[in-house]
Amino acid sequence: MIDLSLIRKAKTRIEPYVHTTPILTSSKLNEITNTDLYFKCENFQKSGSFKIRGATNTILQLTSKELKRGIVTASSGNHGAALSMAVSRLGIKPKIVMPRNTPKVKINNVIRNGGQIIWCDPNQSSRDKVLNDILNKTKSILVHPYNDERIIEGQGTVALELIEQCPDIEAIISPISGGGLLGGTICTAKKINDQIKIYGAEPKEADDASRSIKSGVIEANKSTNTICDGLRAQIGTLTFPIIKRYVADIFTIDEKEIIDSMRLIWETMKIIVEPSCAITLSALIKNKKMFKGMKVGLIISGGNVDLDNLPWGD
Amino acid sequence: MIDLSLIRKAKTRIEPYVHTTPILTSSKLNEITNTDLYFKCENFQKSGSFKIRGATNTILQLTSKELKRGIVTASSGNHGAALSMAVSRLGIKPKIVMPRNTPKVKINNVIRNGGQIIWCDPNQSSRDKVLNDILNKTKSILVHPYNDERIIEGQGTVALELIEQCPDIEAIISPISGGGLLGGTICTAKKINDQIKIYGAEPKEADDASRSIKSGVIEANKSTNTICDGLRAQIGTLTFPIIKRYVADIFTIDEKEIIDSMRLIWETMKIIVEPSCAITLSALIKNKKMFKGMKVGLIISGGNVDLDNLPWGD
Repeated sequence: MIDLSLIRKAKTRIEPYVHTTPILTSSKLNEITNTDLYFKCENFQKSGSFKIRGATNTILQLTSKELKRGIVTASSGNHGAALSMAVSRLGIKPKIVMPRNTPKVKINNVIRNGGQIIWCDPNQSSRDKVLNDILNKTKSILVHPYNDERIIEGQGTVALELIEQCPDIEAIISPISGGGLLGGTICTAKKINDQIKIYGAEPKEADDASRSIKSGVIEANKSTNTICDGLRAQIGTLTFPIIKRYVADIFTIDEKEIIDSMRLIWETMKIIVEPSCAITLSALIKNKKMFKGMKVGLIISGGNVDLDNLPWGD
Repeated sequence: MIDLSLIRKAKTRIEPYVHTTPILTSSKLNEITNTDLYFKCENFQKSGSFKIRGATNTILQLTSKELKRGIVTASSGNHGAALSMAVSRLGIKPKIVMPRNTPKVKINNVIRNGGQIIWCDPNQSSRDKVLNDILNKTKSILVHPYNDERIIEGQGTVALELIEQCPDIEAIISPISGGGLLGGTICTAKKINDQIKIYGAEPKEADDASRSIKSGVIEANKSTNTICDGLRAQIGTLTFPIIKRYVADIFTIDEKEIIDSMRLIWETMKIIVEPSCAITLSALIKNKKMFKGMKVGLIISGGNVDLDNLPWGD
C-alpha cells in the first residue's frame, strides 16, 4: 500500500496543472439502476483523461539532469498524450512508443501535445522490445504508464477528490488495465474509510486482472481483442499485490454490454466517454442487485473517442 | 419587450422542475478564438434542451379546467419532448404534431416523455393544417413553441441564469429559429445591462430571421434544408418585433461550418451538443475579430442528437 500522505502530497503537487473534475449525476440512470450514481468525470480532465495526474506527479519529481536525458514511455494512447502534455510544458519532447492500431484520435492527441511517436506492433513483446531498444541506446528516463509509485500516487488523487466531493460514497467502481488507477483508488479510499468497497471492471476479452486475482499470481492476457483500447495492458507487479489484497471483486464484461453502456451514457448524460470507462456502468448494471440503494462512484476515466469509428451504427 | 419581473417570476415558478445548468469553459477553445467563452449548457437540461423552461412556465399557469381540455402543440422535437414531460407530470397525455422527417432520437424523446405523436408533412402548411384540424375538432389548449409570452418568459430564464453565473458577460450568441430563446434572451439581458450585445445565429439554409431583420417585415424561409433540425421554424409575430429592435446582428452560417463547430465542441469539450447550438460557436469563429478579447456567452440549447446519423464519417 502507498501511504495516504503521499497521495495528498501528490494532489498538492499537481494541483496547478490539472482540473478538479466535476461529479455528474443522472436521475434517469439512478432510476434505471436503483442506485445513487456519482460519475467522476475525468473525461473533462486536461489531455482528456486521468493520466495527466500520474504523469505530472512523476515529471515534477525528476531532477533537471534526469529531464535532460530525455523521457520515454510505452502507451496505447492516453498516458502517452498526458505525458506529452506534462513534459512539453518543460520544453522537452518525449518519445512515445505506441502500437500501430491505436485510434487516430489518440495518435493526434500525442502529436498535438508535443510527443514524438515511435511505432511498435500491437503486442506486449514488440512494445517491450522497441522500448528497451530506446532505453539501451539512449539514457532516457522511462515513465511507466502504471508500474511506478509516483504514477499510482497521482492516479490516487482521482479517488481523493471523489471522496472529498461525495463523502458518503459506499462503493467505487474503477476500470482496471495495468492497475494504476484501481491501485491508487484502493490506497486512497481504503485509508480514508475502510468500509468503502472498491471494485474493478475489465473486458472479458482482456481479463488478466480477474484471472490473476483468482490464481493468486500474475496471469497474462490471452487476448486484447476489446473495444476498450485503454484496457489492453497487463496488470503490473507493483499494482497487483495492492489490488489482490483489497479489491472487493473484479467484474468482467462483454463487448456488447460495454457498447450499450457507452451509448446509454452518451444519450442520457450528453457527455462523451470512452468504452474503457463506460465499462464501470456495465459492471454496475450487471450487478445491480448487489448495489441496490447504495451510493456508488463510477470513475469516468477518459473521453478520447474516435468520432469516425463509433461502435454503433447501421 | 417582456418585463424582466415576469422573467424573474418565471424562474421562481419553474425552479423545482428544471436544472440550473452549468457554465463550461475550454482553455483550448478560448485560445483558438481569442475570447473568453462561456458555454451555457442546456444540453444537460431536463428533456435534453432549454425548451422545458418555456413549456413548464406555460403549463403551470393553466387552470385545471384548461388542462382537462387537453394540450396540443406542433414541434420538430425538442419543444414536443419538453411539453410532453411538463404535461405528463400532471397525468395528462399531450398531442404533439411532428414532421415525418424528425430524427428518431427526438421522436423517442416525445414518446418516452409521455406525448402522443400526430404526424404531418415536413412543411409549415401541412403542420398548420394538421394542428388546426385538432384544435377545431377538440377544444384542446395550444401551447405554441415560441409565439407565446409565457414561453418567451420561460426561455428568458436561460439568460437570467447565465448572467447570474457570469456577471461580466459582454455578449451573448443565441440560436434563432422561431425566436423564443433569442427573444427571451434580449428581454432579460438588455434589461439587466443594456451594454450586453445580443446576437442570433441561424443556418443560411433557413435564414428567415436575417432576411426579416433586413427587410423590416417577416419573411418566409425559402428552404429548411439544414442539418439544424431545431432551427427550421419561422420567426414569430411576437418575437420578431423584440428581435428586430434590439438584436446586434444575426449571423448566417454554412452547413459545413456548423458541422465543423459541432465536431470541435465534441472533441474538445467532450460534451454532446446539437448542430442547432454548435452554430453559435460557428458564428463566433466566423467573426472572431469582432469578439476578440471579449467575454462571450454561447447558448448551448440542446443535446438531443441521433447517434446513428452523425454528420461526419466515411
